[in-house]
Amino acid sequence: MSPSRAFPHSERGLIIPIGGAEDKVDDRTILRHFLERAGAGRARVVIIPTASEKEDTGTAYEKLFRELGAGSARHLPITTRADCEKESFLEALERATGIFLTGGNQLRLSTALGGTEVARTIRRANASGVVVAGTSAGAAFLSEHMIAGGEEGPTPRAGMVTLAPGLGLTNRVIIDQHFRQRDRLGRLLTALAFNPFAVGLGLDEDTCAAIGPDNVVSVVGEGAVTVVDAADVSFSAMGRVPQGAPISLIGVRLHVLVDGGRFDLETRTACAVADGDAVCSEAAEEER
Amino acid sequence: MSPSRAFPHSERGLIIPIGGAEDKVDDRTILRHFLERAGAGRARVVIIPTASEKEDTGTAYEKLFRELGAGSARHLPITTRADCEKESFLEALERATGIFLTGGNQLRLSTALGGTEVARTIRRANASGVVVAGTSAGAAFLSEHMIAGGEEGPTPRAGMVTLAPGLGLTNRVIIDQHFRQRDRLGRLLTALAFNPFAVGLGLDEDTCAAIGPDNVVSVVGEGAVTVVDAADVSFSAMGRVPQGAPISLIGVRLHVLVDGGRFDLETRTACAVADGDAVCSEAAEEER
Repeated sequence: MSPSRAFPHSERGLIIPIGGAEDKVDDRTILRHFLERAGAGRARVVIIPTASEKEDTGTAYEKLFRELGAGSARHLPITTRADCEKESFLEALERATGIFLTGGNQLRLSTALGGTEVARTIRRANASGVVVAGTSAGAAFLSEHMIAGGEEGPTPRAGMVTLAPGLGLTNRVIIDQHFRQRDRLGRLLTALAFNPFAVGLGLDEDTCAAIGPDNVVSVVGEGAVTVVDAADVSFSAMGRVPQGAPISLIGVRLHVLVDGGRFDLETRTACAVADGDAVCSEAAEEER
Repeated sequence: MSPSRAFPHSERGLIIPIGGAEDKVDDRTILRHFLERAGAGRARVVIIPTASEKEDTGTAYEKLFRELGAGSARHLPITTRADCEKESFLEALERATGIFLTGGNQLRLSTALGGTEVARTIRRANASGVVVAGTSAGAAFLSEHMIAGGEEGPTPRAGMVTLAPGLGLTNRVIIDQHFRQRDRLGRLLTALAFNPFAVGLGLDEDTCAAIGPDNVVSVVGEGAVTVVDAADVSFSAMGRVPQGAPISLIGVRLHVLVDGGRFDLETRTACAVADGDAVCSEAAEEER
């Protein structure tokens, strides 16, 4: 699914992948950040809990967003593909100012929503300015190429990661989550080793990477975002190794960005904040 | 990689995936079909043999296209990512009226070309009207979501297929090749079971499925194209089964089309030719 075309005279809405386990009790920085961008007291938040097997995930997020001052918060109990054609659900999505996809299993999202009117409506909403966030499985699903599963460890190996088509709000990034907590650098490198065109975003828990309409990524939260930029990769052995073997990969650029850090997906420039000033990398290659 | 935007006032060029083992000795129907669309005697054909490990693949296709009357035919000996930035290669691609990707291993294509100037130039060329064909591995690589590998057999099973990002000339289809010869229905169904938005095209050998700028697919050749349309899938169990288990999949539509058959990717209508008349299916769902 390639990105929906933006409507004339409208900017694409923010895309906010979250690394999972965002704080729901204390500061709730990430959830506040999403809610503010969705309109705060005037926000109409629609929650999609399809990834989750738990019955109360949708209502729990409704409660959270209401406590944080959302104008309204409503979850859509979508579990089947038939649910994804329900008129009342589509109307709720069309009126939403912010759409939030919960965690769980990203394959529950792609198998239920993929190719349905709900997926089309979310894509159109984002293209016309509505902010769309996802946490954990919900984050993985946002991009065109989704990590469906994989193994732990820092070294890329053939067969270590399973890719599948996602929602396709952007095709610039491949997202991984619970990144530090579950030792996932190897599987993200493996995903990029297939085809080094994309930028990998490894999101720690309670951390998000908000992708603006200008394709600048901004980091917010307690952990870090590991940016894996394959623009200058001069060699990937993915086509030459047997299943299970480690993969040679030459020339990956890696940035670790914390709260306030930014990465420009067009120029491939990374900036961190140091003593109030931005410290930036040189621009890498031109955009794909 | 999502499709390049078409230039104003220009139509996208044909995209011609070929199922491999196209006839190179007798009628050479498929190669003639490509060459005719590329301009026949005025065609400037550029061959990319990167998928192949054989030294002479590029020169063999040069010879074939010259024998068939191409205005010119030249292969680019691209094996590394550095090769993909060479000015002389980019100039050849910019002047091409037809670009042909040979067979071999599709991961050799995605790892060498992905994110490079050669990939961008092919995408731009196709967006502005240049016909791009690929056979076998070259066919798999053409679309956004590429089958990188998998297992034989008719039943979809979790873990049976490996997807990776491809060249991205279209994101409407997932292509598989040597389809009848290598018993690949199961792996194509598995690819669609992840996210039923796409249409699967299973290409037999010596058969191609030419995708027009209007997103109508036309079949040419000796074998069949198996169209696997997931638009009406009501259930995919991909998110609920362990590795290796068979996957429940409800509501797939399947068409087998031979020479002269057509499939409209927008309306999801299939037409076969019977006694000179077209016999068509009812339209399925609206486009994604």
